[in-house]
Amino acid sequence: MSLDKPVIAVIGAGALGGYYGARMIQHGFDAHLFSPSDCAAIRRDGMRIHSRDGDFSLPPKELRVYDDPRQMPAADLVVVTLKTTANHRLAELVGPVVKNDSIILTLQNGLGNEELLGDLFGPEKIVGGMAFVCINRIAPGEISHTDHGMIRIGEPLGAAAARTRKIAGIFRQSGIPCEAIDDLARGKWDKLIWNLPFNGLGAALDRTTDQLIGSKEGLWLVRRLCEEVIAACRPLNIQFEFNVTEEKIRHTQTMGAYKTSMQIDRQLGRPMEIEAIVSRPLRVAEANSVSVPYMSMLCNMLSVLDSLIAK
Amino acid sequence: MSLDKPVIAVIGAGALGGYYGARMIQHGFDAHLFSPSDCAAIRRDGMRIHSRDGDFSLPPKELRVYDDPRQMPAADLVVVTLKTTANHRLAELVGPVVKNDSIILTLQNGLGNEELLGDLFGPEKIVGGMAFVCINRIAPGEISHTDHGMIRIGEPLGAAAARTRKIAGIFRQSGIPCEAIDDLARGKWDKLIWNLPFNGLGAALDRTTDQLIGSKEGLWLVRRLCEEVIAACRPLNIQFEFNVTEEKIRHTQTMGAYKTSMQIDRQLGRPMEIEAIVSRPLRVAEANSVSVPYMSMLCNMLSVLDSLIAK
Repeated sequence: MSLDKPVIAVIGAGALGGYYGARMIQHGFDAHLFSPSDCAAIRRDGMRIHSRDGDFSLPPKELRVYDDPRQMPAADLVVVTLKTTANHRLAELVGPVVKNDSIILTLQNGLGNEELLGDLFGPEKIVGGMAFVCINRIAPGEISHTDHGMIRIGEPLGAAAARTRKIAGIFRQSGIPCEAIDDLARGKWDKLIWNLPFNGLGAALDRTTDQLIGSKEGLWLVRRLCEEVIAACRPLNIQFEFNVTEEKIRHTQTMGAYKTSMQIDRQLGRPMEIEAIVSRPLRVAEANSVSVPYMSMLCNMLSVLDSLIAK
Repeated sequence: MSLDKPVIAVIGAGALGGYYGARMIQHGFDAHLFSPSDCAAIRRDGMRIHSRDGDFSLPPKELRVYDDPRQMPAADLVVVTLKTTANHRLAELVGPVVKNDSIILTLQNGLGNEELLGDLFGPEKIVGGMAFVCINRIAPGEISHTDHGMIRIGEPLGAAAARTRKIAGIFRQSGIPCEAIDDLARGKWDKLIWNLPFNGLGAALDRTTDQLIGSKEGLWLVRRLCEEVIAACRPLNIQFEFNVTEEKIRHTQTMGAYKTSMQIDRQLGRPMEIEAIVSRPLRVAEANSVSVPYMSMLCNMLSVLDSLIAK
C-alpha cells in the first residue's frame, strides 16, 4: 500500500464523489471514478464544476471513468460515496477495487456504513468520515458546489492514526478542506444533528432548508429534532455544547435555498436514505430508552412516502 | 320561524353543501344556495350528482343559486358548510340571511365554529353537527358522493331539543341520513378521531386514505394520532369504546382511495383547515397538560406547508 502515490478509486461519483474525484484529478492524483449513470456523458463531454472555490473543467482525456467496477484497477485508497440506499450492493460495487492493503474511506451519510464495509472487507481496512458541504449534481458530469465545507475523517476503532492524517493530506492537496479527528462517532452524530432534521423534514415536506427555517413552525420542528438527536447519543457518552442546535441553524441561514439530497431523491422518485439517516439513530435512541417521538413520527412519515415511491 | 315549510339557505355550496342543497331541492324544499365560485356554471348548466344513493341532475330552472348572500332571502334554517378557512368572513357571508328567529346549523369541520357563530349571531340560534361522508366536487355543479354517511346534529348548550329533531327530519325527508344526538361535544371529538389523522396526514404526506393505512408505518401514524385525540378530550369527560381507533381504521378500509378535503386543498394550493381540525384540538390538549407530541408535530408540519402555499 502506498498513500504517497496512491491509486484512488471513487465508488459512486455522483455529486459528492464526482466533486472530490474531479478535485483530486485536477491536482494530479491518479483517481478513477465509478459513475454508472454518468459514465457515457463524462467520457464524451468531460466534467464541469461550478464551485465557490473556483470553477473548472476536466476534458475527457484527463478522466478515467467507469460504468463497471470490475474494469477499474485495484486501489490503495477506496473512497465510497455511494448513496446508502445502494448499501445492499456494496460487495458487488466496492469489492472489485479492494486489495489486501486497501484503505476504504466511507463518506456516506448516516450510521452503519463502517460496520457494513467492515463486515465485508475487514474492519481494519475501514476509515469513516463526514462531508459538511452543499454539492448538487445538476447534469451528467456537471456539479454545483455552493457552500464551503470540511471533510472530517476518523478511525472507527480508535483515535486518528498516521493513515488517517495521510488521507486528510490527500484531500487537502486536492484543494478540499479536510481534517483527521479523534472521535469519529461524535463526528457522525454531530453531522446527524443537522442531517436528520434537514434531510428528513426537507424530504417529508418537500421544502428547501431556507423554507424550513423561514417560519416559527419550521424552526420548532428543526429544534425538536436536533434536541432528540442530541438526546439519542447521550447514552453513548457523546455530548455537545449547549448551543449546538442554534449554531446549526445559524449556519443553515448562510446556505440559501438548499435542497437536501433526500428532498431531491423524493422529488425524483428515488429511494431515500431513511435507514442510515433516520432509522438507525432512532433505533439507537430506542435501544437506550430515550424518548424521541418526533424522530419516530418523521421516520414513519418518510417510510410511507418511500414505500409509495417504490410502487 | 317555521321549520315546517322552511326557507333554507346553504352558505357554502361546495361539495358538502352542494350535495345536501341539491338533495333538499330534489325533495321539494325551498333551498337557496350560496356558491360564489360555481354560481355562473350552475345557473347555465344546473347540477349533476353522482351518488351511491342514486344519480340525479337538477336543471337551472329548479335551482336558486347566488354569488352574493345579500341577494338571498332571509332563511328559517341557515346551513353553514363553508370551509373553516373562511371563518374570518362569517359575518359578511352568513349575516345577510339571518333574521331574528333563524336557526343556524354549522356542519363545518373541527372545533370552534359554534362559538364563532354564537358570538356573531347569538348562541341561542346555533345548532352544530358533523357530516360523516365522502363527497368531492369534481367540477362546477358536479359532485361525487362516494360513501354513505350520516349527519349527526346536536345542541351546543344541551341535549337534543324539538328543533334539533325537526332539522334532522328535514335532512331525512331529503334522503340524507341524519340523527339528533344528545352530546354534540362527544360527536365532534368522535369525528376528530378520524378527521385529524386522515386529513392531517393526508395533507402532510399528500396521500389518499388507502395509502395511509396501506403500510405498517402509515397505520402506526394513524393509530398514534387517534390515541392522542382520544387522550386530548378525556379531561373534558368525553370517553370512547376501547376499540374506537380500530373501528375507524376498519371503516376507512371500505372507503377506497379517498382524498380528504385537506389533501385536495394542499394539492390545489388552497389554505388548509389546520386551525379547526388540528390546532384547536392541540390547544385543548395543551390546556389540560395532555402530552400530544405527534399532534404537535403534525400541526407544525402542516403550518409550514400552509405558510408556503400562501406565499
